[in-house]
Amino acid sequence: MTIKTPIGYTTRDDIFVRDRNIATEILGQLDFIDMIFLAATGQTPSAPMKRMANTLMVAVTDHGLTPSAIAARLTILGAPESIQGAVAAGLLGAGNHFLGTMQLSAQMLKDAVAGLAPDADGAAFDACAAALVREYRSGKRIVPGIGHPIHIKGDPRVPALRRVAGECGFEGRHWQLATAIERAAQAEYGKLLPLNAAGAVGACVADMGLDPLWARGFALIGRSAGLVAHLLDEKRAPLGQKLWDLVLAQDDSAELAGHDNPIPQRAAALRKA
Amino acid sequence: MTIKTPIGYTTRDDIFVRDRNIATEILGQLDFIDMIFLAATGQTPSAPMKRMANTLMVAVTDHGLTPSAIAARLTILGAPESIQGAVAAGLLGAGNHFLGTMQLSAQMLKDAVAGLAPDADGAAFDACAAALVREYRSGKRIVPGIGHPIHIKGDPRVPALRRVAGECGFEGRHWQLATAIERAAQAEYGKLLPLNAAGAVGACVADMGLDPLWARGFALIGRSAGLVAHLLDEKRAPLGQKLWDLVLAQDDSAELAGHDNPIPQRAAALRKA
Amino acid sequence: MTIKTPIGYTTRDDIFVRDRNIATEILGQLDFIDMIFLAATGQTPSAPMKRMANTLMVAVTDHGLTPSAIAARLTILGAPESIQGAVAAGLLGAGNHFLGTMQLSAQMLKDAVAGLAPDADGAAFDACAAALVREYRSGKRIVPGIGHPIHIKGDPRVPALRRVAGECGFEGRHWQLATAIERAAQAEYGKLLPLNAAGAVGACVADMGLDPLWARGFALIGRSAGLVAHLLDEKRAPLGQKLWDLVLAQDDSAELAGHDNPIPQRAAALRKA
Amino acid sequence: MTIKTPIGYTTRDDIFVRDRNIATEILGQLDFIDMIFLAATGQTPSAPMKRMANTLMVAVTDHGLTPSAIAARLTILGAPESIQGAVAAGLLGAGNHFLGTMQLSAQMLKDAVAGLAPDADGAAFDACAAALVREYRSGKRIVPGIGHPIHIKGDPRVPALRRVAGECGFEGRHWQLATAIERAAQAEYGKLLPLNAAGAVGACVADMGLDPLWARGFALIGRSAGLVAHLLDEKRAPLGQKLWDLVLAQDDSAELAGHDNPIPQRAAALRKA
Repeated sequence: MTIKTPIGYTTRDDIFVRDRNIATEILGQLDFIDMIFLAATGQTPSAPMKRMANTLMVAVTDHGLTPSAIAARLTILGAPESIQGAVAAGLLGAGNHFLGTMQLSAQMLKDAVAGLAPDADGAAFDACAAALVREYRSGKRIVPGIGHPIHIKGDPRVPALRRVAGECGFEGRHWQLATAIERAAQAEYGKLLPLNAAGAVGACVADMGLDPLWARGFALIGRSAGLVAHLLDEKRAPLGQKLWDLVLAQDDSAELAGHDNPIPQRAAALRKA
Repeated sequence: MTIKTPIGYTTRDDIFVRDRNIATEILGQLDFIDMIFLAATGQTPSAPMKRMANTLMVAVTDHGLTPSAIAARLTILGAPESIQGAVAAGLLGAGNHFLGTMQLSAQMLKDAVAGLAPDADGAAFDACAAALVREYRSGKRIVPGIGHPIHIKGDPRVPALRRVAGECGFEGRHWQLATAIERAAQAEYGKLLPLNAAGAVGACVADMGLDPLWARGFALIGRSAGLVAHLLDEKRAPLGQKLWDLVLAQDDSAELAGHDNPIPQRAAALRKA
Repeated sequence: MTIKTPIGYTTRDDIFVRDRNIATEILGQLDFIDMIFLAATGQTPSAPMKRMANTLMVAVTDHGLTPSAIAARLTILGAPESIQGAVAAGLLGAGNHFLGTMQLSAQMLKDAVAGLAPDADGAAFDACAAALVREYRSGKRIVPGIGHPIHIKGDPRVPALRRVAGECGFEGRHWQLATAIERAAQAEYGKLLPLNAAGAVGACVADMGLDPLWARGFALIGRSAGLVAHLLDEKRAPLGQKLWDLVLAQDDSAELAGHDNPIPQRAAALRKA
Repeated sequence: MTIKTPIGYTTRDDIFVRDRNIATEILGQLDFIDMIFLAATGQTPSAPMKRMANTLMVAVTDHGLTPSAIAARLTILGAPESIQGAVAAGLLGAGNHFLGTMQLSAQMLKDAVAGLAPDADGAAFDACAAALVREYRSGKRIVPGIGHPIHIKGDPRVPALRRVAGECGFEGRHWQLATAIERAAQAEYGKLLPLNAAGAVGACVADMGLDPLWARGFALIGRSAGLVAHLLDEKRAPLGQKLWDLVLAQDDSAELAGHDNPIPQRAAALRKA
């Protein structure tokens, strides 16, 4: 038994990734998206696959002070010696509730579509969607990919992702089911729970024919870039201490607890810190 | 005092990254490399900058069962519920010794070149290099970016990276110093300590005019993709348990410790595990 | 709305944990186990609770080159600047398959016992256990807490944990069910799948009346100590590079791939590395 | 060459830690603090060593909404499936600036005291301290272990730790130097920069004769317990989403950027989220 992986290996003189020589067959010839697919599958992607993958990673790169960005900035505040630790802390929040939801959505859509007949019509998709929504509701679980706390009238990324999916040939049966689920959820709950970016990414990954784990993979690669951007910005204009001060300053525990505590002085000291 | 970042923010209807609307000005129009630079700097990269960045991330994506890949595979063995945890575990090894060395190399080259006169000639670069090598040696520190345990005659990625750097206009004064350091180290130590991939990436990043932190950033983004590839491969053909068994099977502690231990049975049991 | 936690807060002159002044009411008066319970619940533990908690954390501290210890040692090899990164990498493997299984076991036992009548007799426990085993088997899931790849005749920690549980008054209905599950599994699968340490810890935590999350909590606190021990040992006698070499040396990929590769030289170079 | 560690190993029937059988010689006989020392050194601690270690870990367990606790709570918000990921995220901030400072302080004190004559008098300690403070200042570095943003008149943990150190016989030359450094810093900077908890822990660890790495080790073990307490509290009364909302609510980016954005509605939507 030899432990090896088809991904690659190293000799004294050469490095091979998927049996291609990195010096003579990869560097300068493949771009990073090609390399992601080469490493993971042994093949470079088709042009539409590549455009879609680019778009998915762009969609998740960053959008400001998200929990993962805040966690990364608070981590570098305590451990400035470890950039990788701050990136890791940020990625650890990419789980079943945020970002990782993309994998759950892709898996749910893939499983459900696999159960539909090849010639299933719109009514069959609607019935499937209604059954899914009811099943999740009865299990007191949230259907992955719908609803958003801020974008209550609709997630602006969804139509953009759908347009690119259409142009690339990946607006297929999984997108059809995702749309039916949005309708079914509105009927079931009596209010709009719009398809969100996680649901749209899930539909794209499923219609690309990729393993649902790719959805979380794209999210992690994309977000790692967003976190690097935050850490470069943190170096330029640190927010970590201010974020902590913001939490401390709104808490008047000491007074409530009956202690004679000079909150204003404390807040002032904190703001100068 | 408001805590905000120029990277981006979200409103009820829109998401902005560097003041561009993600739905109408980003998705479908920028690729992932554009987005990395947009998020981090507010600007998309020039064509040469983009090609160079692609090449650097390709160079670090993966090359088989490295310590970070092994750590990720052992982590998913214990915690299959958390893909992000396994990626984070792999990235945590991208420190000052592996991958993060790229940042140390870029910083060293940047600082040293900043001390050279604009019209410094080859002799001045050689003198600077010799001084650097002696300074590190006297401090019993390793010069970042030279020497390799496997590629003892030369790291195959270095000429490839240099060729692309030349084509993109980034084979400048930092590359010149890196080459001088390789020569100076050979003179100082009496043996070839070839410029390695970390040194080459450091030279590229410095000649691109980017903050040295970008070198570790490219390494983390690139390696996150390599780790996703390993986790997809681990799902297809698990190696985690085999890697652990390999460690256990070579250790006959029990017998050495004087216990009556049926190692062959143990090894057999492990292999079946 | 104020964001605060009953765990503690800080004023200019004082620090309070669960409303006790750390300087005058905690330091020097409480030991670490007291403090774990104080921070988490607001109360110090009874003597039996404390002895049991000590024993559970001792049980999980360490037992050699486990996947989490290997991951930590490979991580410090690449990132010697970050002790916390190596500990974090080791803890990330404490998931549903290793260590975290303790939480799954405690939860399963708690839920099942909650469904038994207060006067349930042995036959009722056996019926409950048999139903659980069949339910997991039909779902192609492993019952948490039974079976072990190495300790095929029985996990040596189980009787020791049971003895301490008995002495402390925590060998109750959850232990009774755990034992019944071991029997039911043997009947169902036709071979011994002994109760393992995870199952025993799960039974203890459930019989202590603690939230099942405590089981994973004890595992993480205990293992963090084991990982610190490994990192101190790694500083004294480094194994990280040897562990990597072990993986590389058993892989003759290059030859299999048809390249003219001097494996012996490579292996030799690696061993010197 | 066999890869093994004296920490422990497993056979089919037994588990050994430092050559003690875990079932018959450890479980039920050693408490967790004994086990920490046994795993790390092969010996159980003396009574004073044990009391001191307990006190150091108690000192770092928790004191409310620190950056590491906030990072852990934001991480579990996104990844509720991974308790270990949230603990890991919290520990990743235990670096050179927070908590890890304890190691830096212990190392600095150990190195400096090693350079003092065995019969050095108070004047020699003062001279050594003054030289250290000036050296750090000229290198624009902060002396580890002094100053605090909140406890500007003195860290309440310091006298308590010193009292216990005295009772345990660990208030020795490193404490003497730490105190001299506090005086020297006041003279050098013209204001009180009081010895803080990190400095006090560093002095204790150095006077205990332990490797400075133990200081960060105690911090990581202690804080892992504090983080488990926060995650149990987060399950009872979630703060993660509120912490994120707090950050979002104070940022009026959209209006400043000139967009027609209904901030109040957004804030309301967030608060309901």
